[in-house]
Parts: sequence; structure tokens; C-alpha cells
Amino acid sequence: MSDKFISRAVIKRLPRYYRYLGELMENNIERISSKELSERMKVTASQIRQDFNNFGGFGQQGYGYNVEYLYTEIGKILGLTKTHNVIIVGAGNVGRALANYADFGKRGFVFTALFDIDISLKGTKVGDCPVFHVDDMESYVKENDVEIAALTLPKNNAPEIAAKLVSWGVDAIWNFAPVDLNLPDDVLVENVHLAESLMRLSYRIKEKD
Amino acid sequence: MSDKFISRAVIKRLPRYYRYLGELMENNIERISSKELSERMKVTASQIRQDFNNFGGFGQQGYGYNVEYLYTEIGKILGLTKTHNVIIVGAGNVGRALANYADFGKRGFVFTALFDIDISLKGTKVGDCPVFHVDDMESYVKENDVEIAALTLPKNNAPEIAAKLVSWGVDAIWNFAPVDLNLPDDVLVENVHLAESLMRLSYRIKEKD
Repeated sequence: MSDKFISRAVIKRLPRYYRYLGELMENNIERISSKELSERMKVTASQIRQDFNNFGGFGQQGYGYNVEYLYTEIGKILGLTKTHNVIIVGAGNVGRALANYADFGKRGFVFTALFDIDISLKGTKVGDCPVFHVDDMESYVKENDVEIAALTLPKNNAPEIAAKLVSWGVDAIWNFAPVDLNLPDDVLVENVHLAESLMRLSYRIKEKD
Repeated sequence: MSDKFISRAVIKRLPRYYRYLGELMENNIERISSKELSERMKVTASQIRQDFNNFGGFGQQGYGYNVEYLYTEIGKILGLTKTHNVIIVGAGNVGRALANYADFGKRGFVFTALFDIDISLKGTKVGDCPVFHVDDMESYVKENDVEIAALTLPKNNAPEIAAKLVSWGVDAIWNFAPVDLNLPDDVLVENVHLAESLMRLSYRIKEKD
């Protein structure tokens, strides 16, 4: 499937399908039609069928999709069947929130280390995640299989630290710093720009008034 | 301008323009051409001109845009010239991170109160933001002008609390709980689904391998 082009919009919707299917499983629902799924998710049934056809359709029969099968298959597509090691750079509130958030672990994202410039935090733990000093980050990344680095540090340091992490072997950056990192095109970056999200809300409030 | 349809994609880019222009001002840059701005932001110059034309073009002359003027005008469009009162529901790590993040204040978002179910937090402060018990939330919202509520609480409680907040007069929800709130269509909701962002990254890692 990876040789086929899947649009960004579809990829954006997949995690949402995955979340809904997880909720259905929690509620012991075994089968669901695209119509029912569409009503719950507020997208059209034809959109759902079209999205799923990108991946072979998941074999809906007259009586609907098998929820667990669909959940498992979408999990495979999203790469959630393997473990992803994640480090967190910056032990402020956001970094600590990530380290404490057990839900990520259920999806195979393991926060293996948290790094901070504050030497007094060295040797402590946030949740199950040990805290190291940033000076130890280079050797840690080179010696361990770190796929993702979450950047939860001030914006001024973020681009330089990101470039170093990539040069040491990190594959992907999950960036919470309010700055563009300007990394080479082959580096995967997912930005979480909270201020921008809030400004979009403010725009919509203004337009509504 | 509010009678003209502006596409969601343009709205999504506006906060990013605003952030860049703010950085230019910090660096005492007074004028910038669409070409220079395009190189920094990695969008095409024609895209920038097209986006700005939605708002009358901001009068680029042969020697470029006036940075401060552009920053101010985009700020007006985003509704950042007035103060927005924001309450935070849930004093966990994410709620505390928001309350502590001074950058929002600079853009006119004032975090006036934080609510939590833990009675021992009542009367404390996070940053400048006072903490109240959730039982006091209804009267607070009814007596104060609360525009935005940030929901940083567990997903099971989020839809019910969101519905209540809206019925008490909150205009917009900034939702960090990993759940869809299913509010009436006229309620403004901006979701920050961190797990979904991480899954998109995991998908892209898998596709690259």
C-alpha cells in the first residue's frame, strides 16, 4: 500500500476513525455500518467508504464493518503495531504533561527519557519517565533507538536542538515550540502550535459577532 | 470584510503570517517583499499575494510591505485587538501549562480562572491565574464575561461540561480532551487532539521506512 498515493486529508481523518473505533470497542459494539459510523462521526457515509477504499475497503458486507478488524487494520496503516521510542526535550509543564499521559503508551508510543537544562531535575522521574541533563542527550540518542523527539522547550533554542537531534539519528520531530524548525525536507515534523489554534478561534469569534 | 467568504485554508495560514511578522518586528525589520517573506515561510510569493488580496492586499508597493502595518492589520483580522477572557477547566499538567504560558497574554488572551474538582487546589494560583472549585464554575461564568473555555480534563467528563459551559454563556471551546464534543453547530470549537497528531507522525514514519 505504501506505493500508492494517499491524500493528506485522508491521513488526517484516519486517527479520528481509529479513536472512534476504539470507543466502539470499549462499548462492546462488534459491527457498524458506514451509515451509523457516519452519523456518529458527522462525516458522510460516502466519504467514509471513499476513505476506506484507499486501503481496499475493509470488506464491508451488507451488515456492516467488523469493528475490531477495522480498528486493527487502521492501526496497522498508522504504524501503531510497533513500539515507537519517544524522548521529550524540556521538562516544563507541556513536557511533563506528555510524560504523564498514559494513553500514548497504549498506542505504542513509549516515552523513554526526558531531558532538561536544569541540573537539579537530573535523576528524578516524571511518571515512569527518567529525567536526564541535556548534556547527556547526544550519547543517549546515539546509543538508543530514538524515533521521535518531542520539543517542549523555548522557541529560541528549538531550531538548533532539532537540527542536532536529527544529525544524531532522530527520525521525526514533534514540535511544540512556537517556531518553524527549517529542517531538511526528508525530516518528518509535526507541529503543535497552540497559539495559532487559539488565534483561529479568536478569528471565528470575531466573524460570528 | 466579514461579509466576504474567506477559505479555511487562508484562515489557517493567517496566524502563521502573524507569528512571522512578529519575529520580523523583534528583529527590527521594517519592510519585507512578498518574495523575501515567501522564502522565509516556504510558501510561494504568489500564494502570499493571493492570501493578502482577500483582505485588500495590504498595499505592497515596489519596495515591499510595511511589517508593522501588516502585523497590525492581520492582528485586527484575527480579532487580537480586543481582550478575550479564557477560563481553564482542569488543573492537570496541560491546564497548568496553559495558565503559565505568558505568550498568550501578549496576544490578548487572559486566563482569568482555572477550575478543578480537587478541593485542595481551591484558593491557590497557577501563574497569575486563581484556582476555583468546579462547583463555583456556573456562577463564575454567569457573572463574568467568559468568551473561551479551555477543556483540559478527562475525556469522559468533557462533553457534559462543554454543554453546560455553553448553556451558561461561553462562546467558544478550546478542546484538549481526546473526544468530539457534539455541540450545536453555532458553538465554536477548536480541537487540539495530541494523540491524533502523534499518530499522523507515526504514519509518516511507517511510509518512509
